[in-house]
Amino acid sequence: MDNITMKLNADKYLMMALEEDITSEDVSTNAVMPEYKKGTVDLICKSDGVICGLEVYGRVFQLLDEATEIDYKVKDGDKVTSGQLLAVVTGDIRVLLSGERVALNYLQRMSGIATYTNQVASLLKGSKTTLLDTRKTTPNARIFEKYAVRVGGGSNHRYNLSDGVMLKDNHIGAAGSITKAVAMAKDYAPFVRKVEVEVETLDQVKEAADAGADIIMLDNMDIDTMKKAIEIIDGRAKTECSGNVTKENIDKLSKVGVDYISSGALTHSAPIMDISMKNMKVL
Amino acid sequence: MDNITMKLNADKYLMMALEEDITSEDVSTNAVMPEYKKGTVDLICKSDGVICGLEVYGRVFQLLDEATEIDYKVKDGDKVTSGQLLAVVTGDIRVLLSGERVALNYLQRMSGIATYTNQVASLLKGSKTTLLDTRKTTPNARIFEKYAVRVGGGSNHRYNLSDGVMLKDNHIGAAGSITKAVAMAKDYAPFVRKVEVEVETLDQVKEAADAGADIIMLDNMDIDTMKKAIEIIDGRAKTECSGNVTKENIDKLSKVGVDYISSGALTHSAPIMDISMKNMKVL
Amino acid sequence: MDNITMKLNADKYLMMALEEDITSEDVSTNAVMPEYKKGTVDLICKSDGVICGLEVYGRVFQLLDEATEIDYKVKDGDKVTSGQLLAVVTGDIRVLLSGERVALNYLQRMSGIATYTNQVASLLKGSKTTLLDTRKTTPNARIFEKYAVRVGGGSNHRYNLSDGVMLKDNHIGAAGSITKAVAMAKDYAPFVRKVEVEVETLDQVKEAADAGADIIMLDNMDIDTMKKAIEIIDGRAKTECSGNVTKENIDKLSKVGVDYISSGALTHSAPIMDISMKNMKVL
Amino acid sequence: MDNITMKLNADKYLMMALEEDITSEDVSTNAVMPEYKKGTVDLICKSDGVICGLEVYGRVFQLLDEATEIDYKVKDGDKVTSGQLLAVVTGDIRVLLSGERVALNYLQRMSGIATYTNQVASLLKGSKTTLLDTRKTTPNARIFEKYAVRVGGGSNHRYNLSDGVMLKDNHIGAAGSITKAVAMAKDYAPFVRKVEVEVETLDQVKEAADAGADIIMLDNMDIDTMKKAIEIIDGRAKTECSGNVTKENIDKLSKVGVDYISSGALTHSAPIMDISMKNMKVL
Amino acid sequence: MDNITMKLNADKYLMMALEEDITSEDVSTNAVMPEYKKGTVDLICKSDGVICGLEVYGRVFQLLDEATEIDYKVKDGDKVTSGQLLAVVTGDIRVLLSGERVALNYLQRMSGIATYTNQVASLLKGSKTTLLDTRKTTPNARIFEKYAVRVGGGSNHRYNLSDGVMLKDNHIGAAGSITKAVAMAKDYAPFVRKVEVEVETLDQVKEAADAGADIIMLDNMDIDTMKKAIEIIDGRAKTECSGNVTKENIDKLSKVGVDYISSGALTHSAPIMDISMKNMKVL
Amino acid sequence: MDNITMKLNADKYLMMALEEDITSEDVSTNAVMPEYKKGTVDLICKSDGVICGLEVYGRVFQLLDEATEIDYKVKDGDKVTSGQLLAVVTGDIRVLLSGERVALNYLQRMSGIATYTNQVASLLKGSKTTLLDTRKTTPNARIFEKYAVRVGGGSNHRYNLSDGVMLKDNHIGAAGSITKAVAMAKDYAPFVRKVEVEVETLDQVKEAADAGADIIMLDNMDIDTMKKAIEIIDGRAKTECSGNVTKENIDKLSKVGVDYISSGALTHSAPIMDISMKNMKVL
Repeated sequence: MDNITMKLNADKYLMMALEEDITSEDVSTNAVMPEYKKGTVDLICKSDGVICGLEVYGRVFQLLDEATEIDYKVKDGDKVTSGQLLAVVTGDIRVLLSGERVALNYLQRMSGIATYTNQVASLLKGSKTTLLDTRKTTPNARIFEKYAVRVGGGSNHRYNLSDGVMLKDNHIGAAGSITKAVAMAKDYAPFVRKVEVEVETLDQVKEAADAGADIIMLDNMDIDTMKKAIEIIDGRAKTECSGNVTKENIDKLSKVGVDYISSGALTHSAPIMDISMKNMKVL
Repeated sequence: MDNITMKLNADKYLMMALEEDITSEDVSTNAVMPEYKKGTVDLICKSDGVICGLEVYGRVFQLLDEATEIDYKVKDGDKVTSGQLLAVVTGDIRVLLSGERVALNYLQRMSGIATYTNQVASLLKGSKTTLLDTRKTTPNARIFEKYAVRVGGGSNHRYNLSDGVMLKDNHIGAAGSITKAVAMAKDYAPFVRKVEVEVETLDQVKEAADAGADIIMLDNMDIDTMKKAIEIIDGRAKTECSGNVTKENIDKLSKVGVDYISSGALTHSAPIMDISMKNMKVL
Repeated sequence: MDNITMKLNADKYLMMALEEDITSEDVSTNAVMPEYKKGTVDLICKSDGVICGLEVYGRVFQLLDEATEIDYKVKDGDKVTSGQLLAVVTGDIRVLLSGERVALNYLQRMSGIATYTNQVASLLKGSKTTLLDTRKTTPNARIFEKYAVRVGGGSNHRYNLSDGVMLKDNHIGAAGSITKAVAMAKDYAPFVRKVEVEVETLDQVKEAADAGADIIMLDNMDIDTMKKAIEIIDGRAKTECSGNVTKENIDKLSKVGVDYISSGALTHSAPIMDISMKNMKVL
Repeated sequence: MDNITMKLNADKYLMMALEEDITSEDVSTNAVMPEYKKGTVDLICKSDGVICGLEVYGRVFQLLDEATEIDYKVKDGDKVTSGQLLAVVTGDIRVLLSGERVALNYLQRMSGIATYTNQVASLLKGSKTTLLDTRKTTPNARIFEKYAVRVGGGSNHRYNLSDGVMLKDNHIGAAGSITKAVAMAKDYAPFVRKVEVEVETLDQVKEAADAGADIIMLDNMDIDTMKKAIEIIDGRAKTECSGNVTKENIDKLSKVGVDYISSGALTHSAPIMDISMKNMKVL
Repeated sequence: MDNITMKLNADKYLMMALEEDITSEDVSTNAVMPEYKKGTVDLICKSDGVICGLEVYGRVFQLLDEATEIDYKVKDGDKVTSGQLLAVVTGDIRVLLSGERVALNYLQRMSGIATYTNQVASLLKGSKTTLLDTRKTTPNARIFEKYAVRVGGGSNHRYNLSDGVMLKDNHIGAAGSITKAVAMAKDYAPFVRKVEVEVETLDQVKEAADAGADIIMLDNMDIDTMKKAIEIIDGRAKTECSGNVTKENIDKLSKVGVDYISSGALTHSAPIMDISMKNMKVL
Repeated sequence: MDNITMKLNADKYLMMALEEDITSEDVSTNAVMPEYKKGTVDLICKSDGVICGLEVYGRVFQLLDEATEIDYKVKDGDKVTSGQLLAVVTGDIRVLLSGERVALNYLQRMSGIATYTNQVASLLKGSKTTLLDTRKTTPNARIFEKYAVRVGGGSNHRYNLSDGVMLKDNHIGAAGSITKAVAMAKDYAPFVRKVEVEVETLDQVKEAADAGADIIMLDNMDIDTMKKAIEIIDGRAKTECSGNVTKENIDKLSKVGVDYISSGALTHSAPIMDISMKNMKVL
């Protein structure tokens, strides 16, 4: 994660997470370690996967004490295996103890998402279909989770409601028709936004393509209908399909030739990757 | 979730989550709906489980417009089934559209945790063992996730580093011995805290119990060792076991007679519960 | 300005502006008015123009006292003339006095931008060219200023660095070529973003169009070069020209057939519109 | 701008302005520059005027990366001319690109105010009249704009409603008379505040001076009436005149012998000064 | 305390104080009262004094639940006696329990300051000397404490470093002389500020008065020297004396004819007034 | 105070306190010292007592300028006497002047509490009774005040409503009985919390002990009743007594054999310790 994003958009969450975990003081640590003591600890992987969030992990300790040093043995996106040494952290042992849980909570979650994304993305390898995330992210963790999707080999859909236009059935109903909705969106939205329309029938597909939609989301269509939709669109717009993407059906979906497949599960249901801190030593 | 916790400890996260999703405006909605229009929408369950987070879900809309009304059909902790109507939300359609994703992101995650916790807790039914969560929660979501564990039938371990004492190997090492660490903690920590010690051997078990630990965490012990530990402790302290709790071994663990079993998976790896908003209608 | 944007994105700035103007208390008002006294005051225009920011103006008073009532006589976007009554505000006179300056500071500035934008946009009437703003907005006022541009008849360029891709010479230099920069951007950026490239020569125009840029910004070109650029692009990308847009040259620019003209002056140098509060009366 | 004001009162606005411009990440820069690359860029003036805001400009980059170095070639208050090199900034090129717009938005605006103030103040040179600003500043930019007025050669009126007493017609009406209002203000306000009264007639002038007002604001009086007012006051209070100060009438106003002339236009309608960053080079 | 000050300057402190006392939830109350239950409780004085902070007290409960009603039996500034009923609070019993401590912490402290100020101020009754507070307030409580001083019958010195000029020995040393320091302050500071100079010798007194200081602070002078100082000043400036004001010497000080006596003890060492909530009843 | 607590829990209060004291700039200092000037100043004690808050004091200056150096001559908890040199601060004189008041406000208050606590705690020396603080702390200063109590030789009661269970008469009333209330609390609260019950009669003492309360608070009992209560409890729970602890009765209370005595006065009514900064010198 680049430094600017870290400072402007991640730091505030990291500080809040630390404040959530330490509302007055770390009682256990302060009870037995009244003084600074330099030490070191290993970050070790306990399962296989794609590591993600190392700078975030390190930043947690540096927010507690900027003198903390992290010697990274791998970098975000690397495939790691159980038992592998990922990093060595050196600093005040009190900082290592007090920051451990928050740092790991981020690292495990981000690595879990990267790992899961990587597994799904690998099923699309060789096809022209790109795997996308959604806005079904953990509240107040989007900056971390969308980054993890990219590290895992996926791509990002719009970041939020402000930076992308997606016209769903209710928007279309309010406008009166797909044609009108697309026109209103093109008139209203900043011109750097692409306009995406969610459709359910082939008639809607045609209307959306004719209306000049930049992206057409094929919602809950079966494989055959999707194929026809893509024929109708005929390159006039990018195509996206969403819904319950599984390892079983993803292969068929990509063969249909849809440009993008989006999956909420990448961020809302990936299990964490098991990682721990071991071998703390006083220096 | 009670109103005071909501106002003091949840609202700030909900506002931040809304700001994360709407950094300038909801472009799609504003493009096609320039004016207030009253409408209604159904909240419908798409899988079976224990519902949790209904007030949080409703609060998201009310933070956008306090005039939004939510007619709840169920309450937190109820078992719900796929297709069931959970609530009807009435208000400005723009509010219903703009708040939908954030509201669902919370509700699905909290219900996922309550559902998973409920499944694990049911395996302990009839035993004297209580299921606990851990601090392995999503950063900036602890208030929601610990609540969901309770709703699902689990109990809460300490909230954070400030409100509970847990002496691990590094604390013990710094103090010199378990005996000294317990004494230092009892001397330093607010006297309303119980003191918990994490031990790995039977010698440590004995030392911890003799030192007056209130809770002894049996770390990575096999079933037989645990049984001996409980004999040694002989009611002088509460016992907890942690680690990789699975459906297969949890039965054995509870039969050992340990007082508490804690599981990080309750909060870090529960898949979400599928819930959606359907049938939006202009009134 | 819609209510959701107001609550999520404007309120915090309004509160900060009030706190900037009242760091402890309104000494003058508190010295002479220790008690609530209901009153009314007129909002009156003192020059001609396009009014903008009425809800923002009203919101300032309601943040001080939600019981304040504003009876709007016009709405955002209306052309108003000197002497015209714009609104009547009724409430605690202390609130009317204490909020006056902040409320007017917003209203005058937003109306100034809407008025100036309207003047420039009217010069483009009948052409196919759209007038755009830039990121040269007042720090911490973008949400208000971009809205004012729309109210005045302009359109919005990207909101910020996160929601639009603009590849300038330094980005191109870092990538190695326009072709590579466009490819890297299409690969990296969320797929809902259009990719814009800033070019200075006809060779660059050709390369950008061939590379699949969605928008090509013609930087500092003379009229003839711009015409040739548009021929080369031949509808493959939208075209934008920026730089020193004046009333003299804007006519020529639009005749060239460029799709968009962007002007920083809309937000950074529009003079305010003179508006004042008069005729305060105790009720 | 001194360091303490910067840290306590300016930094929060600068951070917010950066967050306004980068809500998730700088997509363009991150797409083509994944790694740190050291570079340098020139800050060059494109019009003549009084430069102001250099430390603020530099601070923007240092908030993104404290290792950024700024070699200032001029200092706040210097008269600069088009084409002049103002500073050289050295650091991570990504920081230079991502911070450019926010840094320039501040510098251009502050320099615009300093330049405009300087022009008006020069018309008062040789007179005993001092030029003042008002509270008609841009919301959330007062700390920067009042500083720019000083740098331009003007002086500051009260900072906000809390640190100065100004009794206007409504305050006087509430108190019952000027005499009563002044007495109430002297009784209520911290004794380090001077008490200013706004008057419109010569009777009011007399009453205010007799009541012991420290400053008397002559509102909308013609030149002759103002002269009489100053005679009546006879040194018992400082005098201020406000209203539509123009280059044509300011000379007459100063000859009347009024102590202070305040002008809202200094901060609400000064056009920006054109400044840009050029010649970015990789080191 | 007026509503505007409450909303803009007090609310944020009240919310922080509530968050300080409830970091996750009120465990005791939630354990036994899962549901809303309407109740009432009496606010009763347990010692004699001047009551202060009633709206602040009530506001704490209303921030938890705006439906809470407070029936005030007295108002700020009233003399109250032990056993007197001050107010009846009606609302959700959980709100009454959870807010009690924070509400009382404010009320007791503010009433303690008002009571102590009142005792000291009464010693000055009949003299021309005014009692002042200082900046020796509790951090993050100045808005409450300076208000309490006024309610108790004292007056306020400057609010903070930004709204008043006080030139001490180090300022004078930096300027070169009192004369120069006063001139620099009059030139630099907003012209609505009075300039105060702290002096220790009669020579300094003369220089300060000659230099046009608005207020002269006589620091650590004995009674006779002070008398001479006042003769030297001869009405050209207001006089203030500070230091260890006691009940014994305050009479002498006021007889000297000094205009103001400031005392840090009003805010830093006043004991609280004992007040409690009793007779909680379910309705 | 350890660095982690300082960064996570104290810094925000220190920054707010500085912003409270400097809302725009330190006018006096900026008027006479436009440039950096290195200097030094002594921190000197003006009364006898227990010093507390030295790192907090130093941190205030370092938040203004991290280059400020503090050479501590004593450490928190040391007994100091009037006239003693406590520390020498070196840095930009403007920082020393601008930060002085806030730094001293914290140091004097914390030392006042430590000193007062120390006096009371010394009366308990030799007994088995521990002196405790309460939640009657200054709002937004609890982290500093509870620390000062520990430094003075007292111990901390629960930090806030979230980290300790205290069942008072209203809780017991809501539950139905002490027995039920204790059971509900043990069921609901995190299991690391001890459960405390406040009782007034010997019947309640018996019920609380039988119910398994961990701590029993003997409220307003006379010495004889307390003795009987302790006999009834017979070691089954810890005992606490609160109320008006005075130097006269504290001896009797400790002889009764109660485990804990809590006193609100430690934090709400301790007078400050007089400390000042002297001998500022330019280096």
